[in-house]
Amino acid sequence: MFNFKIESESRNTRARAGLLQTSHGRIKTPVFMPVGTLGTVKSLSPEELLDAGAQVILGNTYHLYLRPGCEVINLFHGLHKFMHWEKPILTDSGGFQIFSLAKLSKVTDEGVTFQSHIDGSSHALTPEKSIEIQICLGSDIVMCLDQCIEYSFDRDKTKDALDRTTCWAKKCKNIWTEKAQNKSALFGIVQGGVFKDLREISVAGLVEIDFSGYALGGLSVGEPKDIMLEIAESTLPMLPHLKPKYVMGVGTPEDLVDLVALGADMFDCVIPTRNARNGQMFTERGTINICNSRFKHDTAPVESGCACYTCRHYSRAYLRHLYMAKELLAYRLNTIHNIHYYMKLMEQMRSAIQKDEFEIFRKKFIEKRMS
Amino acid sequence: MFNFKIESESRNTRARAGLLQTSHGRIKTPVFMPVGTLGTVKSLSPEELLDAGAQVILGNTYHLYLRPGCEVINLFHGLHKFMHWEKPILTDSGGFQIFSLAKLSKVTDEGVTFQSHIDGSSHALTPEKSIEIQICLGSDIVMCLDQCIEYSFDRDKTKDALDRTTCWAKKCKNIWTEKAQNKSALFGIVQGGVFKDLREISVAGLVEIDFSGYALGGLSVGEPKDIMLEIAESTLPMLPHLKPKYVMGVGTPEDLVDLVALGADMFDCVIPTRNARNGQMFTERGTINICNSRFKHDTAPVESGCACYTCRHYSRAYLRHLYMAKELLAYRLNTIHNIHYYMKLMEQMRSAIQKDEFEIFRKKFIEKRMS
Repeated sequence: MFNFKIESESRNTRARAGLLQTSHGRIKTPVFMPVGTLGTVKSLSPEELLDAGAQVILGNTYHLYLRPGCEVINLFHGLHKFMHWEKPILTDSGGFQIFSLAKLSKVTDEGVTFQSHIDGSSHALTPEKSIEIQICLGSDIVMCLDQCIEYSFDRDKTKDALDRTTCWAKKCKNIWTEKAQNKSALFGIVQGGVFKDLREISVAGLVEIDFSGYALGGLSVGEPKDIMLEIAESTLPMLPHLKPKYVMGVGTPEDLVDLVALGADMFDCVIPTRNARNGQMFTERGTINICNSRFKHDTAPVESGCACYTCRHYSRAYLRHLYMAKELLAYRLNTIHNIHYYMKLMEQMRSAIQKDEFEIFRKKFIEKRMS
Repeated sequence: MFNFKIESESRNTRARAGLLQTSHGRIKTPVFMPVGTLGTVKSLSPEELLDAGAQVILGNTYHLYLRPGCEVINLFHGLHKFMHWEKPILTDSGGFQIFSLAKLSKVTDEGVTFQSHIDGSSHALTPEKSIEIQICLGSDIVMCLDQCIEYSFDRDKTKDALDRTTCWAKKCKNIWTEKAQNKSALFGIVQGGVFKDLREISVAGLVEIDFSGYALGGLSVGEPKDIMLEIAESTLPMLPHLKPKYVMGVGTPEDLVDLVALGADMFDCVIPTRNARNGQMFTERGTINICNSRFKHDTAPVESGCACYTCRHYSRAYLRHLYMAKELLAYRLNTIHNIHYYMKLMEQMRSAIQKDEFEIFRKKFIEKRMS
């Protein structure tokens, strides 16, 4: 069912445009995946996501395992029907959330035990169990369980975590091959922190196991932006050219443009949705905060010429009013615009790659955003 | 521009079906008006309101005067364009909110001074100013400023308030005649508390001034339900038969059916929207609370056969999950269903009146709701 095809490649950068085929349809790359943590991209309906151009969303295994739990989602034969989303879903493995949200997590070679951030209940997650949960969710793109580490980890600790991640990746591959290879793709996750040689070791281990695609994990965990880009720049070319390359948890519009130039195909991040709920809205001419009092009497849309539902029907003055009054509609209208902005940005990059004009696009993009 | 026509009357009850013509289109009565306090019916888009069958919404003058204020709404030539709602809008006068929300309100024959519930700032509202604000809002149906009283008020205090309300009504009529009679309708508000003879005095005073329609105010302020119905039963027939009759701030589905039987044409209430946000959902077979654990594994929609967006695409299990996780989409999906339920109930009543089967409808309605 799963297949990846590169359609165009930029000559002056490593940017490429491709097509991912999944059980729930095709995905044009480069692609940004809105985050639907708990079976909903916060504040949006599936129709609004489609209208904004979303092709695939991300579901969080950790969150969905805790609430509503697999026994509920099984009744719907997966997340698609449960949440009324018929397009592809990528699920993460739970690894990142266990290390960032859960309490008292303990890692052994078998897996990880942790306490729920909601009610303190104890749980154990093994590589096998992570895959089984993702199969229950009906995921189109399944991620291997990885051990995430803090930015501050030293070389030895980082090496330990990457070795464990490679070992878990084998176990994930085995159970996925047995139970889900006809229905989904399985991606390996590269660890190795900020150490380029460790990233190389991680890549080698994963490539030997052989995955449908590869992700860079352990980025966006507090490291400075130039280090994130440096690691991506050195690691992305190590990954098999013909496989999709996914940079997890990134990023700002500028990050996406930089990483596409470095050869990344897939992204997910809470920035467009979370920032929308904090009043921050992205436009081609920079980022604005809708609470700003200069918008109080502004009858223009957030972005002139923007085709999103929010910009077609509402003014900055109205959005500011809703936001200041904490009206529920504020979060939705802001999110619609930001998701639309991200989707349009990805389409523009894809189109530029196809015309082999990515460098020109990138230059104009930066100029406009700084204006 | 404004016109009311009775199309059908029930023979065994006082129920009637009519048509209200306003500057922004026709309204079929009996009608329920969703409450859009701050220029938004909480959590819904205008398209969702239309889809549910909403014909007219209510805007709160007190709230909109404080936020965003007339100088903002003037830039949009009224509330319609500001909030992207092209159908009729009825605005209240601010009277009820000043007495229920504002602090340190003081009433004189000239008007009322009060402190904002948001920032404590001081304001004065006169009958004239209330009408001017409503004109600025571009209201299709303008309400006279009334003095609302508590349920506990004695006869003398109640009489004082109704006399003042009548006096204000004259002032409202004068300024409305001068400034807005071509663009809107003006309704008088009957006061008189729980004293039937005082209600009669209030009606006589208002009818002498002559309004486009008449509302019963001062109900739903804490009085027992049978007293509310008793006052409505005695007061509604006193109002001019050929004018629309509006019962303000009411009510449950049962209240609406009872009051339509007594001859009421128009209603507004926060119950369908507020209760939705608290997880309470209305169905033909009773009211349910979506948090209930018995819905955890329930794959059925809130109401089988319901044509609303929520029931067409989502299960009780999903809605419960969203609600328990405090997901923003929960409030919207619940509100869509409840507004749809209220709109359908009004349509069913109208259709029953037109077939002169209102008594049969009412009997079946009660039987089902109790089942």
